[in-house]
Amino acid sequence: MRRNVTSCSAWRLYVIVDRATAGARDLSALLEAALRGGADAIQLRDKQASATQLLRQAQRLLPLTRSAGVALLINDRVDIACAVGADGVHLGQDDLPIRKARAILGPGRLIGQSTHSLEQALAAQKQGADYIGFGPLFPTPTKPDARSVGLEQIAEVTSRVHLPVVCIGGIDAETLPRVVSAGARCIAVVRAVCDAEDPEAATRTLKRTLTQFVRTASPASL
Amino acid sequence: MRRNVTSCSAWRLYVIVDRATAGARDLSALLEAALRGGADAIQLRDKQASATQLLRQAQRLLPLTRSAGVALLINDRVDIACAVGADGVHLGQDDLPIRKARAILGPGRLIGQSTHSLEQALAAQKQGADYIGFGPLFPTPTKPDARSVGLEQIAEVTSRVHLPVVCIGGIDAETLPRVVSAGARCIAVVRAVCDAEDPEAATRTLKRTLTQFVRTASPASL
Repeated sequence: MRRNVTSCSAWRLYVIVDRATAGARDLSALLEAALRGGADAIQLRDKQASATQLLRQAQRLLPLTRSAGVALLINDRVDIACAVGADGVHLGQDDLPIRKARAILGPGRLIGQSTHSLEQALAAQKQGADYIGFGPLFPTPTKPDARSVGLEQIAEVTSRVHLPVVCIGGIDAETLPRVVSAGARCIAVVRAVCDAEDPEAATRTLKRTLTQFVRTASPASL
Repeated sequence: MRRNVTSCSAWRLYVIVDRATAGARDLSALLEAALRGGADAIQLRDKQASATQLLRQAQRLLPLTRSAGVALLINDRVDIACAVGADGVHLGQDDLPIRKARAILGPGRLIGQSTHSLEQALAAQKQGADYIGFGPLFPTPTKPDARSVGLEQIAEVTSRVHLPVVCIGGIDAETLPRVVSAGARCIAVVRAVCDAEDPEAATRTLKRTLTQFVRTASPASL
């Protein structure tokens, strides 16, 4: 257990608060809705922000996630995660290597990495990631260039990787049961919450479905 | 003296190796030309690069600047400066605050900040910068939105700020004598080297002119 936030092995629903997807919406309000709806982890992503903008945004969000006992991870910027005292970073394959990030962050913060194949997932584990993202499971406009990995790979990755695996990419309330049936225990969403008419209700529905299906699919894992 | 590189108080010519300005040119070749021409400090700037790309580029450049005893500073990304073991960072007004950067970098690396007014220059000094950039002195296509500060401010800033002041913004061989006459002791260039037909010759000419005029303008400072 790090910094009094829920351990990532207990995560079910990971919500990416993404500036590009949220558009004109206030990110603090969006985050609060996601927290009320039951999000277990939050990632702040804003690829277009200056460092100052991202720092200020993270400073606004951190007290909210802290109150809820939910981890706040910063996308890409290890320096900003450090500067704001966030719970960790989420790295893409083109971001800083995990070991370099760990040297800056120290052992007390979480590092996750997006992976798109079993090889990348195993490499992330070897390099000391605390969790991995795996996907995209479905084609998604958030990552138009990425080829989807396919649901059949979930079981292989979750059995070979001894870290929490956060499945991602085009998951919504409709596709979620298939994702859980394929072996997912934790999922991440962007559009399904950030672009929802009612982000709190959308989060709650996903969380409820997820908890229910994960229980049905694998009682032992709870 | 930090890390066996020339102290920033002795800098005369600071060359920004900028991906956007260099276009298709190889940055290592450009850097080597600048070093042969007599650059005293190098900043690597690539606003479009992923963290991995910037890290790799910096890893290619660092042995070259180390051999020359010249400081390599990374633009904006404090985490990448740390990861690569660069000599420091250069921060814009929209990048991480100096104190946050210092907490990550420690006392052994250089921090510079771009400033555009006397107030910003004094603030940077108060926050612990090792040097400041000051400009833009002239309108420059590299920063199309920036209002130029005017040569008459150089004397005020250099007298009020007790840090090395690196004047920047549209300086070339033609405008350089006026800049030195106005009180500049160190200048930074982007286009004048990165966009030059012969970057080594361009650097050498600037350095020679600079050394000569600074000597004429203020023998005591050498």
